[in-house]
Amino acid sequence: MIQGIGAATGVAIGKAFVLPNWEWSMPETQINPVDLAKEFERLYEGIRTSKDEIEYIKREFREVVGPEESSIFDAHLAILDDPVFMSEIRGIIERQYKAAEVAVKEAIDHFVAMFDLLDDEYMKERAVDIKDVGNRLLKHLLGAPEVTLPSDTQPYILVAKELSPSQLAHLNPSYVLGIVTMMGGKTSHSSIMARALGIPLVAGLEAQGDTPIQTGDLLVIDGDSGIVQLQPDEQTLERYKAIRDKQLRKRQQLELLSTVQAVTRDGVALRLSANISSVKELDLALKYGAEGVGLFRTEFLYMDRQSFPTEDEQYEVYKQVAEKAGGGNVVIRTLDIGGDKHLDYFPLPEEMNPFLGYRAIRISLDRKDLFRTQLAAILRASVHGQIKVMLPMISSVEEVLEAKAVLAEVKEDLDRRGISYNAELPVGIMIEVPAAVMIADLLATEVDFFSIGTNDLVQYVLAVDRMNEQIAHMYHPYHPAVLRMIRMTVEAAKSAGIGISVCGELAGDERSLPIWLELGVSDLSMSPQSLLKVKHRTLNTAAAEAREVARRCFSGRRRGENEALLTEFLDRSRLDRSGTEK
Amino acid sequence: MIQGIGAATGVAIGKAFVLPNWEWSMPETQINPVDLAKEFERLYEGIRTSKDEIEYIKREFREVVGPEESSIFDAHLAILDDPVFMSEIRGIIERQYKAAEVAVKEAIDHFVAMFDLLDDEYMKERAVDIKDVGNRLLKHLLGAPEVTLPSDTQPYILVAKELSPSQLAHLNPSYVLGIVTMMGGKTSHSSIMARALGIPLVAGLEAQGDTPIQTGDLLVIDGDSGIVQLQPDEQTLERYKAIRDKQLRKRQQLELLSTVQAVTRDGVALRLSANISSVKELDLALKYGAEGVGLFRTEFLYMDRQSFPTEDEQYEVYKQVAEKAGGGNVVIRTLDIGGDKHLDYFPLPEEMNPFLGYRAIRISLDRKDLFRTQLAAILRASVHGQIKVMLPMISSVEEVLEAKAVLAEVKEDLDRRGISYNAELPVGIMIEVPAAVMIADLLATEVDFFSIGTNDLVQYVLAVDRMNEQIAHMYHPYHPAVLRMIRMTVEAAKSAGIGISVCGELAGDERSLPIWLELGVSDLSMSPQSLLKVKHRTLNTAAAEAREVARRCFSGRRRGENEALLTEFLDRSRLDRSGTEK
Repeated sequence: MIQGIGAATGVAIGKAFVLPNWEWSMPETQINPVDLAKEFERLYEGIRTSKDEIEYIKREFREVVGPEESSIFDAHLAILDDPVFMSEIRGIIERQYKAAEVAVKEAIDHFVAMFDLLDDEYMKERAVDIKDVGNRLLKHLLGAPEVTLPSDTQPYILVAKELSPSQLAHLNPSYVLGIVTMMGGKTSHSSIMARALGIPLVAGLEAQGDTPIQTGDLLVIDGDSGIVQLQPDEQTLERYKAIRDKQLRKRQQLELLSTVQAVTRDGVALRLSANISSVKELDLALKYGAEGVGLFRTEFLYMDRQSFPTEDEQYEVYKQVAEKAGGGNVVIRTLDIGGDKHLDYFPLPEEMNPFLGYRAIRISLDRKDLFRTQLAAILRASVHGQIKVMLPMISSVEEVLEAKAVLAEVKEDLDRRGISYNAELPVGIMIEVPAAVMIADLLATEVDFFSIGTNDLVQYVLAVDRMNEQIAHMYHPYHPAVLRMIRMTVEAAKSAGIGISVCGELAGDERSLPIWLELGVSDLSMSPQSLLKVKHRTLNTAAAEAREVARRCFSGRRRGENEALLTEFLDRSRLDRSGTEK
Repeated sequence: MIQGIGAATGVAIGKAFVLPNWEWSMPETQINPVDLAKEFERLYEGIRTSKDEIEYIKREFREVVGPEESSIFDAHLAILDDPVFMSEIRGIIERQYKAAEVAVKEAIDHFVAMFDLLDDEYMKERAVDIKDVGNRLLKHLLGAPEVTLPSDTQPYILVAKELSPSQLAHLNPSYVLGIVTMMGGKTSHSSIMARALGIPLVAGLEAQGDTPIQTGDLLVIDGDSGIVQLQPDEQTLERYKAIRDKQLRKRQQLELLSTVQAVTRDGVALRLSANISSVKELDLALKYGAEGVGLFRTEFLYMDRQSFPTEDEQYEVYKQVAEKAGGGNVVIRTLDIGGDKHLDYFPLPEEMNPFLGYRAIRISLDRKDLFRTQLAAILRASVHGQIKVMLPMISSVEEVLEAKAVLAEVKEDLDRRGISYNAELPVGIMIEVPAAVMIADLLATEVDFFSIGTNDLVQYVLAVDRMNEQIAHMYHPYHPAVLRMIRMTVEAAKSAGIGISVCGELAGDERSLPIWLELGVSDLSMSPQSLLKVKHRTLNTAAAEAREVARRCFSGRRRGENEALLTEFLDRSRLDRSGTEK
């Protein structure tokens, strides 16, 4: 038994496939001075291939995991355009007549050593990136094949030091039953990818010294406890098989729920919608029974391009989403870049605190040309389905009025162009800045609906950047201050008679259900992966009991108490159910 | 007449003194290989002198302007310890036998060119810093004197391309009547320093092309409108003299108020205290009639050192402040580093959003050793005056309980050591995180007082980093959401019967007075420079009228409205007064 870090939930049982560590062999090849031009051509070809590959992986990663996580690859692409790094490589070829691969290797070593010397985390991260990209370029120059994952064998448990981005992009749950990595932890890219794909993963085994796992060994891994059983005895194997089978059965049962309506045991109906970033994700959402799109993140349309998408390009996508969603609502959020989301062709200022900076509606109102194009595309698509438009990061009444004025101008323009649209297109706002909560009553008179974005709201209310590992433990979505803000928002919406929904991650956390039932919020939007889990939870919950628990939360004083209460309520009803099941 | 940017308020009239631009002359000096050791010694001596000089300027800057603004000099000191920059210099001396000054010049040029090439704002800023520090080092190696400001002439108006840090540190209002800089704007270091010293400054003249100002020319500058009059005619001169004299008279009148109590025309008394960072600032505060210290920023004690201050060192300072303050309150805020404030000897993680990160109480509760030392020093000093302790960045009840538990331990320890202290030392918290406002009722039962830190509160509530130029216009301290949060906090304090004060910059903005009068907040703490201005305003305000205006603000809907209302009220009463004065 080896103890690692449980990084992606679930039990997997199978034969190990150990990915070999490939080491570069690098002859000190000199080139003939007359071949300089040819050598540069080799270098540029390698760069082009590397860029294409990175673009490909970035797309895959974004589709499966999301746009935030894929931004690392933008940094990688930037390095291949970095004049200093590239001129170092060219210099070595030109002045020392070394082969391109040797020059790349020396340049990597030089920059990594230099950046590592600097006592600066930013620089050290750049060093890691340069190494990673440099190795990719090296691989293409040497013609060395990437060690690919086998897909012609029995399904296996993949064992690797760490997975490369392209290996991550090709993870296929049909072949890969589970993953064990020597390095990494819960936040490494392989863990994020595995969680998105539902593949159990145990990370960080290297802390336990060298592990004797060989290809062909029978493994049991538990992605919750972080335990890896190497060549387990019959009894252990049977025990884990029972757990795994139960997990599989549960998953299959869940999938049966996709066409069932989400209603509590005592008859309270919810509408579960999906947060999506692409048409591909919408397919998944519909498969899992989403009743609509509660949040369409349009950033995706703006990424992986050289320029802003045109009105027509955007219109086509919005139309496609609206039509696919059938009669379901499609809430299109206007461009929410800035913060940690950037576009290659739209340079944003370097900011000390980007989360408190130039982003989302602030950019749209500053760059009305972009805003008008997007609104025109949304309006045009509004005749093809139940489209609504939603403005992110609103913090004042003025912003809403200004945005609505732009919308009115765009409508007039469409009228002049003789293009039809839904004149009554509903306009809503994200409630995610504390100021919006505090003036929710004022905002409610200006819009048709609110959608609470819990992720940002919690960050701002608690002044905690949840991506910051040093204080991530202080990110408490059930903090009394957050619950009170959610309640204020809901009450303001209800007394103004406008729509209210939740589209932050909290909606996809089954433990939060009592909160929504108590507040009378029936419209929840979440990642497609959470839909069935939350629906299952709804079907097995008595609203009356849940409300009782929620009321205790709303009178709670401590940030830890409420989460404990809600977790305990969830566990208790699970126990009750498994009691009756048996 | 030349139009520049008004960067520090006031009119100045006087002869110009134009600071010459000094250019380096750099012979390509080679050294004898046997003198290598001697050349290194010269280099190290130059580095030592440069470091001493930077330390000196940093201290001066911090004393006058504040710790936040002085942190730029930490970056400069770090460069002189940077292994890459220094090994480049040493390499040029060692391998090419060039003189130290030549090596420094070449290294500067190399790094500046390299960093400038990178399309990265962070790097470009490093390039500026390297250039600045490198030039200072060069100056010492070449033995070139800094062009100093004359102090043996008539007072003059200083005209310069831009002022160097050491020139800034030596600005003396007795000699420098006003300043004109070709470069820079409202946020450049010279403008910040000039505002702190009350010297009028017009910046950014270079936008108007070459200016023909010569030493000895008569100048009139208006630091409000940004106008510079070169050799003005008699009429213009007289007009500006009248304005200047009125400004001077007003300043003198204000100084007469220092011993007068701050009472409104209709008898509402306020207690005006000072925010200070040092004993020197306390002297200034007392001179301007501060009734106590509403915020003692203890970061100052931790800066300009190689290690954390000991309990005894801290005790001595706290004792001195308490004694100097006489019977006045001294509210000592525990260490508030992190965010944009760092200590040389306490490396903090590189954070993407430091304002939402590891800072203030979060560090104190994580590093209880540091916290205990500070609390012990505060407790020991508490027998020497009216000391209170205040915890920054509180966002939960748990944090308060944890901090109070540490305080109890420290008290027990002092008991064991037989050291006396005020067993009833009042414990308060800053209200600056939105979460604290939302649970103010819960927090109020655990502490003796609240102090509202408006600067951070506004930033978090609106999600606007006010140092970010791109969105600084969105920083609205009178935003309805902010006013509502302030009101919630005051109401929670009053119903719990605990103390309530305000120590953010808003308290020093005379326009805010109606808000405090309406809410019944009588305890305001501000920078020493604001004390007389706010007192003057208080003496000339009728609370009844002011409350009427505040009530209109509290029912305002737009973020811009309230500021306009309050500004208009201020202007109106000024007009009334000047009417009666005449």
